[in-house]
Amino acid sequence: MLAEIITIGDEILIGQIVDTNSAWIATTLNDHGIRVKQITSVSDSKDHILEALEAASQRAELIIITGGLGPTKDDITKKTMAEYFGVGFRRDEEALENVKRIFTRSNRPVLAINEQQADVPQNAVVLQNQNGTAPGMWFEAGKQVYVSLPGVPFEMKYLIEEEVLPRVKSHFKLSAIVHHTILTAGLGESFLAEAIADIEDSLPAYIHLAYLPKLGQVRLRLSAYGLEGDTLSTEIQKHVAEIIARIPEYVIVSEDIPLEVAAMNLLEEKNLTLTVAESCTGGFLSHLFTQHSGASSVFLGGAVTYSNELKERLLNVQHSTLQSFGAVSEETVVEMANGACRNFNSDYAIAISGVAGPGGGTEAKPVGTVWVAVSGKTKTITHKYSFSGRRTQNIERAAINSIVLLLKLVKEEHN
Amino acid sequence: MLAEIITIGDEILIGQIVDTNSAWIATTLNDHGIRVKQITSVSDSKDHILEALEAASQRAELIIITGGLGPTKDDITKKTMAEYFGVGFRRDEEALENVKRIFTRSNRPVLAINEQQADVPQNAVVLQNQNGTAPGMWFEAGKQVYVSLPGVPFEMKYLIEEEVLPRVKSHFKLSAIVHHTILTAGLGESFLAEAIADIEDSLPAYIHLAYLPKLGQVRLRLSAYGLEGDTLSTEIQKHVAEIIARIPEYVIVSEDIPLEVAAMNLLEEKNLTLTVAESCTGGFLSHLFTQHSGASSVFLGGAVTYSNELKERLLNVQHSTLQSFGAVSEETVVEMANGACRNFNSDYAIAISGVAGPGGGTEAKPVGTVWVAVSGKTKTITHKYSFSGRRTQNIERAAINSIVLLLKLVKEEHN
Repeated sequence: MLAEIITIGDEILIGQIVDTNSAWIATTLNDHGIRVKQITSVSDSKDHILEALEAASQRAELIIITGGLGPTKDDITKKTMAEYFGVGFRRDEEALENVKRIFTRSNRPVLAINEQQADVPQNAVVLQNQNGTAPGMWFEAGKQVYVSLPGVPFEMKYLIEEEVLPRVKSHFKLSAIVHHTILTAGLGESFLAEAIADIEDSLPAYIHLAYLPKLGQVRLRLSAYGLEGDTLSTEIQKHVAEIIARIPEYVIVSEDIPLEVAAMNLLEEKNLTLTVAESCTGGFLSHLFTQHSGASSVFLGGAVTYSNELKERLLNVQHSTLQSFGAVSEETVVEMANGACRNFNSDYAIAISGVAGPGGGTEAKPVGTVWVAVSGKTKTITHKYSFSGRRTQNIERAAINSIVLLLKLVKEEHN
Repeated sequence: MLAEIITIGDEILIGQIVDTNSAWIATTLNDHGIRVKQITSVSDSKDHILEALEAASQRAELIIITGGLGPTKDDITKKTMAEYFGVGFRRDEEALENVKRIFTRSNRPVLAINEQQADVPQNAVVLQNQNGTAPGMWFEAGKQVYVSLPGVPFEMKYLIEEEVLPRVKSHFKLSAIVHHTILTAGLGESFLAEAIADIEDSLPAYIHLAYLPKLGQVRLRLSAYGLEGDTLSTEIQKHVAEIIARIPEYVIVSEDIPLEVAAMNLLEEKNLTLTVAESCTGGFLSHLFTQHSGASSVFLGGAVTYSNELKERLLNVQHSTLQSFGAVSEETVVEMANGACRNFNSDYAIAISGVAGPGGGTEAKPVGTVWVAVSGKTKTITHKYSFSGRRTQNIERAAINSIVLLLKLVKEEHN
């Protein structure tokens, strides 16, 4: 089944915001076996929206529209939908109650312009928006279903998950689909493909394997379509086991979670704590962990020692080490990691020092040279990386690879 | 003048990558007075691409196509462009030299499939790609110009800046356009608009003022069109001065740079150094600074003290302070900031402690409560924020607002 996404609003067309909604919707629809044919961003212009709706209806059965549902006169999605379907408006009582509830909660008066948020085209099924005043709307017309949603990401996501997907599944009688993701790291996409080529070839036609590479990780996603849900799960687990058995050293976790969450889960399970000593990653590694709620149960904190003086002060890196080997060296990251473990009192510590670029490279240590050390129960392991990206990518790759190194040592020491 | 952007590739339609290219292109075109009418993401399918090209040519004069230029058989943009224009292929000698140069540099053999990267439709003007093997292509047909570019962001950006924009300016005889941006913080968009309403009303018709709000900051962008470039600059500076004189306390910098760069520039100018002590922002504030090359001249580093123990160990926060007032308190952030200044030996220090959420909130300190302290030459100032966002937004807002507070103290102490 095919879907299209139409985003409405000048913010995207002037480049003020990046359209992250569409990627999220596309992923979510794909997870349910719905393929997105086209994503279209159009301006706040009635004729342009009408044209986009008409074009999308020629290609897809499900059309998801986001944005343009605010209370100001710029926001013309609702009027345009009514014109597209040739209907008038009705005031939805439940949506009105929702508007009043939200304004009362924040002690603001409800103006007429706010009450109008509850007016919807006559043929709309209202999808109540608990997180905002603009209701979502579901329209059926001919073979097509049109869904209009607010552009605020968390309002949109809630409505998709709670209201749109259940309706889509029952309306279009979607067949069952089961996914399982294996997170791997340390082996490139093409090498992985080679290593499991015969397993991939032997998959039944109703199971599809996708490679999703990202920053030194590759997610292997198996998707099974069409049979009973329970049977699919059993079937897919058989192939998952086969793949894991083939490349055990590269499998981080047999689950679709971020790498840093996999690391924190493992540490938590073993009752271990972690600190970090960051130079070139400058806080990004800490941020990777702490962006997740609950990080504090394993992540105690760390130091961003951008200057050499702070490497000495906070991590007790020897002045002579910095002088003899430089800040970007195996000797320095080993002392950084050991210093973090000792001074910050953690079971494990990651230390990173490198040349993120664009400046600071030398012939011996060009931009992209990064040393990582991980200090654990019995030893400190190190690895030198040579990345070739720009500053931001080098920072991200260094952080991600340091977590892979951490996992390696934790697994070795706590089997 | 109107442009459209077409991105080609299944990665966007399955949600695997977020389309950041289009936002960048849209911003860049807007900066040159070219309005983007529609952004369309289509699959790697010939018919679908042809349909999108045809539709775009009905609406716009400049059509920028990204992606689908790799060497594998999925990448069909070039073939499709040739079919669209009804032409054959020619091998471009300069593009071939470029392919060979890139492969030689990395000691790889040039295969036939790589040489084919130098084959282009007969009507294409080749835009040499110094950063990759796929050349950019410029096509003129009727009133339209079509530009096909690789999807790799830094290859695309280089080609747009160095090759596409100069050609677009001369081909379409674009009128002059001058922008000037004022970065403000501390006053919401609607209050700002009220404060400068009469100035906005008095702007001549050829000067446009846009409000670009983002995370507690509002950028005011004045754009002047149509006259001689020099005259426009003088004209625009007059109005910029008027606006700044009206709201001096909210103006961070009269330049289009990120807030954290404005802060680092000011510190550098005054020869001052900065460290940070982060709790709830967990490294994000450090990352904000260190993502920029050259940060090390003012940013020495800092501590991510997620646990209370590390607040005591690294920042000498008193155990009794944490016990009496809690980690999220004015007393604690003051000790954190003072401890950072002293222990990390910097002129200024920012300390942040708060409840990022979603867990950890109490009635007295609900999710979104954040205390910030900035310690400087003569004193330590504090501010309590009550944000209402989700975890990531609370983290970002806390970091951004802490920089605004830093700027306030630095300006006060170093006038």
